[in-house]
Amino acid sequence: MNVLAVLQEIVGVEHVLVGEHAQAYLTDWRGRYTGKAQAVVRPGSAEEIAKVVKTCLQYDIPVVPQGGNTGLCGGATPNNKGDAIVVLLTRLNKVLEIDTDNDTITVQAGCILQSVQEAAAKAGRLFPLSLAAEGSCTIGGNLATNAGGTQVLRYGNARDLALGLQVVTADGEVWEGLRGLRKDNTGYDLRNLYIGSEGTLGIITAATLKLYPQPVAKCTALLALDDIDAAVKMLSRARSGFGASLTGFELMSNYCLRSVTKLFPQQKMPFEGPSLESAWYALLEISDSESAGHARERFELVVGEAIEAGEVQDAVIAESIQQSKDLWHLRESIPLAEAEIGKGIKHDVSIPVSRIAEFVAKTNELLQASFPGVRHIIFGHLGDGNLHYNVGAPIGQEEGFLSRQKEIYEVVHNSVHAFNGSISAEHGVGQLKKDLLPNYKSAVELSLMRKIKRVLDPNGIMNPGKVINSVDI
Amino acid sequence: MNVLAVLQEIVGVEHVLVGEHAQAYLTDWRGRYTGKAQAVVRPGSAEEIAKVVKTCLQYDIPVVPQGGNTGLCGGATPNNKGDAIVVLLTRLNKVLEIDTDNDTITVQAGCILQSVQEAAAKAGRLFPLSLAAEGSCTIGGNLATNAGGTQVLRYGNARDLALGLQVVTADGEVWEGLRGLRKDNTGYDLRNLYIGSEGTLGIITAATLKLYPQPVAKCTALLALDDIDAAVKMLSRARSGFGASLTGFELMSNYCLRSVTKLFPQQKMPFEGPSLESAWYALLEISDSESAGHARERFELVVGEAIEAGEVQDAVIAESIQQSKDLWHLRESIPLAEAEIGKGIKHDVSIPVSRIAEFVAKTNELLQASFPGVRHIIFGHLGDGNLHYNVGAPIGQEEGFLSRQKEIYEVVHNSVHAFNGSISAEHGVGQLKKDLLPNYKSAVELSLMRKIKRVLDPNGIMNPGKVINSVDI
Repeated sequence: MNVLAVLQEIVGVEHVLVGEHAQAYLTDWRGRYTGKAQAVVRPGSAEEIAKVVKTCLQYDIPVVPQGGNTGLCGGATPNNKGDAIVVLLTRLNKVLEIDTDNDTITVQAGCILQSVQEAAAKAGRLFPLSLAAEGSCTIGGNLATNAGGTQVLRYGNARDLALGLQVVTADGEVWEGLRGLRKDNTGYDLRNLYIGSEGTLGIITAATLKLYPQPVAKCTALLALDDIDAAVKMLSRARSGFGASLTGFELMSNYCLRSVTKLFPQQKMPFEGPSLESAWYALLEISDSESAGHARERFELVVGEAIEAGEVQDAVIAESIQQSKDLWHLRESIPLAEAEIGKGIKHDVSIPVSRIAEFVAKTNELLQASFPGVRHIIFGHLGDGNLHYNVGAPIGQEEGFLSRQKEIYEVVHNSVHAFNGSISAEHGVGQLKKDLLPNYKSAVELSLMRKIKRVLDPNGIMNPGKVINSVDI
Repeated sequence: MNVLAVLQEIVGVEHVLVGEHAQAYLTDWRGRYTGKAQAVVRPGSAEEIAKVVKTCLQYDIPVVPQGGNTGLCGGATPNNKGDAIVVLLTRLNKVLEIDTDNDTITVQAGCILQSVQEAAAKAGRLFPLSLAAEGSCTIGGNLATNAGGTQVLRYGNARDLALGLQVVTADGEVWEGLRGLRKDNTGYDLRNLYIGSEGTLGIITAATLKLYPQPVAKCTALLALDDIDAAVKMLSRARSGFGASLTGFELMSNYCLRSVTKLFPQQKMPFEGPSLESAWYALLEISDSESAGHARERFELVVGEAIEAGEVQDAVIAESIQQSKDLWHLRESIPLAEAEIGKGIKHDVSIPVSRIAEFVAKTNELLQASFPGVRHIIFGHLGDGNLHYNVGAPIGQEEGFLSRQKEIYEVVHNSVHAFNGSISAEHGVGQLKKDLLPNYKSAVELSLMRKIKRVLDPNGIMNPGKVINSVDI
């Protein structure tokens, strides 16, 4: 029997897409990766996915799981061989249960992140994972890539928000691990093994996630800072002054914000005078469980002390929800402004917070020595040590700049490695960084990863060409 | 060459203990498990441990890692064959680095938990893991068993506090994974695989751990409650009212506290009148980043609302640090009082918080039906859904009661399973629960665990007889 006929029997004829109907799922949303596939299938349940995987095992066909297709590393795009089956999770989009006394929500993997947030809010709870793609990414993809975002400082990465999983293994079995328990020490941590494995060990089909109380009030400010050292001092002050109320600490260079306001003139910097020329800015946010007045009072006290201590040059505290949104909008527009400036070479890296200032100074210097005139587009989640350390073409030399990605990657990633950092903080490995890992991971670590890949996916059918090869090639 | 001679060359003659010098390490601290070993070795570094493991591989000798030997499930005690080598981690007791800007501390695995707490406090930071054995347990053991304790509600389990590990693998290689990064998505989560594996996959030799700001003030209260439903309602109220300031929520039955005050008459219940007869009590604690006054004010507001709503019958708020200690002392004396009452049959279980009341009612009923007159000694970390659901002999029938452990285990654990709970919340599996896992885990999950065991420890030398067998026997 033809494999497509078998798949049609499992998921229904209308859910096996081929030809032009499959096309949209074969290119990532940024258009950086395009692949081929025999078909794109849309199963309706974990059981159907298990049958699809068993069929692919039988026919020795690669399986490429895909959620919202918003990844940045090509993890959900098949390769060019054309033999793969893309498994779409988007029909598994139900909220299965909300348990407010247990503060958990159980959802299928194809739920859009924003739908999970909304379902939680409707029940009077917060699901804190938040990132730019939240309107189209799926929670399954968030877990498969251990997504980060802007709330990690307080609530952790996607990994930290998951209590239980349902997974279709590479053998086509269903592991029922949907537990809503905050303590469970009965054996190896399979949950965390599947989370962040980018579909190379199995397919996450549902998850039980932690909920939190909704904050009563938020307070947001933009701070003008002389240098990164001052930002690190302010972060430390904010951590002790606000405790767990501190929910956001984003760092942005002057160049980033100037690019935003230049390209989107309706967006304004909230400062006047010399603070417009500050080298760095930090977006600070606290979430309060008491009242808007209390949040404001605490905020003024802690930020006031930082100004007195000379760590912060100037501060604008949002006076309204709209002003707060405007401040976040400045931050969130940076990637768009980058696109306007000309395609840059992006690095999603993390460094111990204590060494970030030194890392930026040193790496800027190394880049200027080898690539004179490149522009530094630096912003990120300082509270997590996570920088989007991006590199723009020298002015007037945009053409062909992207072809230097490999060389620039090498300078930046070698520097990250020298500072004990990570070359992928929150976007994962996918196709993009698979071949870089051997440069920055020890033989021992790579060997452990390969052993796990080989034992959990002995036929090598799960998302091949992503994260790590089964054999050392 | 004799294996002991090889080991003596690696770690030094004085660090290979045999005969009576080894004796203390062959029995767990509660005296429930005793085993035999060829020798107990005390290596001085990860490199020495790697050499010891390689030697054991060569001679096909089982390796039993041991920290403070305070475990409750026999995970650090060798079996009776006498062929094992016990590897003591206690000489690896250095604090390697404290990075206050990064809020991390890097320690060797043999550091006593309390020393880690103290080193953090000296640097003005909090290392929040806290449990009864903290004066003698080691951080390596805490990580190997993913220890819980009283601060999990706010700061998570041991797992959640570790950012990086150094591990000696079952091949005798050193995996250098001591990263101080809050975001790192470069491949499979090896860290969480070793954490909680109880030395059956490798030996954790050092860790980089998260630090937190020291709270400025704490506020503690004992609440008198009619039933567990009221406690769950109060927990929900406390979570939203205090946000992340809520750092403790312990539940205790009347019988537990009465046993404490009866056996230790110097300890007093802080209530008078009818509140002495309440069925349940909760110990509530918040940690504040502002001031003692603010903590108190919030506390009175939220607890006051709970009293008005009829959820809480009475409340005593500690007026001093001493009073707060006294309240905690009541809670912490329960296990000692249990020992006085007569040895009970202990269950370390977790249940979704929303179902705890129903679980307790149902399980009490099942036990009374099969074992009339047994005493229910129920307390635990309600905020984490973790109950120490212990069962005491009927009065006057203490003799021989422990021999009924298997039957009572079965009733309680079957009930836990029916409520989607875990039969080991925070104490691990060890020897005690290894053979119970197959009753409560699916064949799929057991098979995944076994595959991981076999591929990471192909010779089966790491802590055999704990957690899971390499083969399905």
